[in-house]
Amino acid sequence: MEKMIEIIEFFPEQCKEGLRIGKKFKAPKKKFSNIVVQGMGGSGVTGLILRDVLKEELKIPIFINSTYSVPAFIDKNTLFIAVSYSGNTEETINAAKEALKKKAIVIGISSGGKLKQLLKKNCISIPSGFPPREATGYLVVPLLVLFSKLKLIKPKEKEVNEFIELIKKNKEEISDKAWRLAERMDGRIPVFYATDSFQSISFKWMTQINENAKNFAHSSFFPEMNHNELNAKDGFEYTYIVFLRKEKELPEIEKRLKVTGEILRSYTDVVEVKARGNSLLAQMFYLIYFGSLTSHHLAIIRNIDPLPVPAIDYLKKRLKG
Amino acid sequence: MEKMIEIIEFFPEQCKEGLRIGKKFKAPKKKFSNIVVQGMGGSGVTGLILRDVLKEELKIPIFINSTYSVPAFIDKNTLFIAVSYSGNTEETINAAKEALKKKAIVIGISSGGKLKQLLKKNCISIPSGFPPREATGYLVVPLLVLFSKLKLIKPKEKEVNEFIELIKKNKEEISDKAWRLAERMDGRIPVFYATDSFQSISFKWMTQINENAKNFAHSSFFPEMNHNELNAKDGFEYTYIVFLRKEKELPEIEKRLKVTGEILRSYTDVVEVKARGNSLLAQMFYLIYFGSLTSHHLAIIRNIDPLPVPAIDYLKKRLKG
Repeated sequence: MEKMIEIIEFFPEQCKEGLRIGKKFKAPKKKFSNIVVQGMGGSGVTGLILRDVLKEELKIPIFINSTYSVPAFIDKNTLFIAVSYSGNTEETINAAKEALKKKAIVIGISSGGKLKQLLKKNCISIPSGFPPREATGYLVVPLLVLFSKLKLIKPKEKEVNEFIELIKKNKEEISDKAWRLAERMDGRIPVFYATDSFQSISFKWMTQINENAKNFAHSSFFPEMNHNELNAKDGFEYTYIVFLRKEKELPEIEKRLKVTGEILRSYTDVVEVKARGNSLLAQMFYLIYFGSLTSHHLAIIRNIDPLPVPAIDYLKKRLKG
Repeated sequence: MEKMIEIIEFFPEQCKEGLRIGKKFKAPKKKFSNIVVQGMGGSGVTGLILRDVLKEELKIPIFINSTYSVPAFIDKNTLFIAVSYSGNTEETINAAKEALKKKAIVIGISSGGKLKQLLKKNCISIPSGFPPREATGYLVVPLLVLFSKLKLIKPKEKEVNEFIELIKKNKEEISDKAWRLAERMDGRIPVFYATDSFQSISFKWMTQINENAKNFAHSSFFPEMNHNELNAKDGFEYTYIVFLRKEKELPEIEKRLKVTGEILRSYTDVVEVKARGNSLLAQMFYLIYFGSLTSHHLAIIRNIDPLPVPAIDYLKKRLKG
């Protein structure tokens, strides 16, 4: 599997494998009083997705950490999840070590590297060879299985399978829609506003545009953006705005979207991308898949190779030297 | 006090009053297992600032909530802080009611409105008449006093006074610098990248530009932006990039800033704004003050009234109708 498009289209298969990987992993027998999810970039978005998925179900607080140091509240009752696809992310290795010193139960997820060496049996092993940003199925699904084994949430297998079936049936149509969206975005600054509980999704679309299409982008979410950036005006003329939303929203959110759309349309183009699926999880995965395709297609339209990330590689090299 | 510049320059005085207001408020006698800070827009940023200030000190998790509904983990051991400057923010009123139903201890902070009616003695009263985004001193400082009364953190009076002195001594110089920065930003999309633990500050600068200068803007933070948006290229030509940083950074962060700056300078202009002060809190408040001035000056340069927020007012009217 070499071509980026094949990697992206493998997402549903990743989710299926993710279920298997999660089931094989032996969960610790312990009650936790809080969860910290640590990670950066394409790995770090895992924590944001989990927070959105679990917000209405999880009975303990979840804290997202994306830096070298860990928050002071971590102790022996903390479940510390260290996410690093490569297993070598400097910030995450350091934070995991700090968490271990504070006696937290640290569980890693990676394709190898130093994290695997550090945590051994406590690291969930996932296949290597993917760019981290296109390994979301491998990164998120095993953790959902882990959380359900820990009785923190209900099993999510049905929802994952719903997503897999959804893509199987609509693959061509989604790709066509992503092509049309990418064509319209070309030459503009893509701006993504997601509705409530899809906060991680608009961030994910932004970073996919950054890394795959090498384009500057921006993201925020409803209703928060109604309290600040809605009042901006100048600068919007450079943007192309996409609302990322559920198929059905509550009436008050539907009205917010309508009026916000009217205001923004007086400055620039605004389109809506609606999720599909019954469960929240299937809808989120559907939009992640759609976003990856859109960013890929935008790269192709602009004659850019979506796979390499030269600026990030250059920075890493300079920081080591 | 009518002119926006007078309101902004009143920030140190607000902090002084904030100390008094906090001291007068009677803290509940209880041990909490977690904190949720609820708020939207100019009020909501209070939670982000508190999270940054307290991360290395607070021994219980803090969760920021900015929507209608509350996370499932809230229970009788939760300290739920409802922040609404007007006291009438729909999302925050609703979330506070949900938190009360779940038996959380709910403490509000507002200048009146429905929140005050709902929470009565459990609402910290602050002066009215300010735009919420320029009431940061009133919103943050009393909560710092409350947290120290609850023995969750050490007193922060010294740090607040350090900030007040800092502005007294350097008022003219900061305003001059803000003028020069605003002039250079004019006509561009301002982009703010803060160093670690100043995450709330880059968000605050962005939203001040949105609301005061009515300009689209973007924000992120180090080291996270090194893992995704650094790889963007096209689109940066429309931006003007500002690094918001501590006076002294760790050597590894200093190197990150240097190399990241080199990469970004090949696309657009990049400048640094350095915080001043010894304590983290004084540095943060210094940058908030500097950012408010910059957004104000940008509005004046562009012949825009910084005070009203017509698009937000229009949306609120339409949502009520």
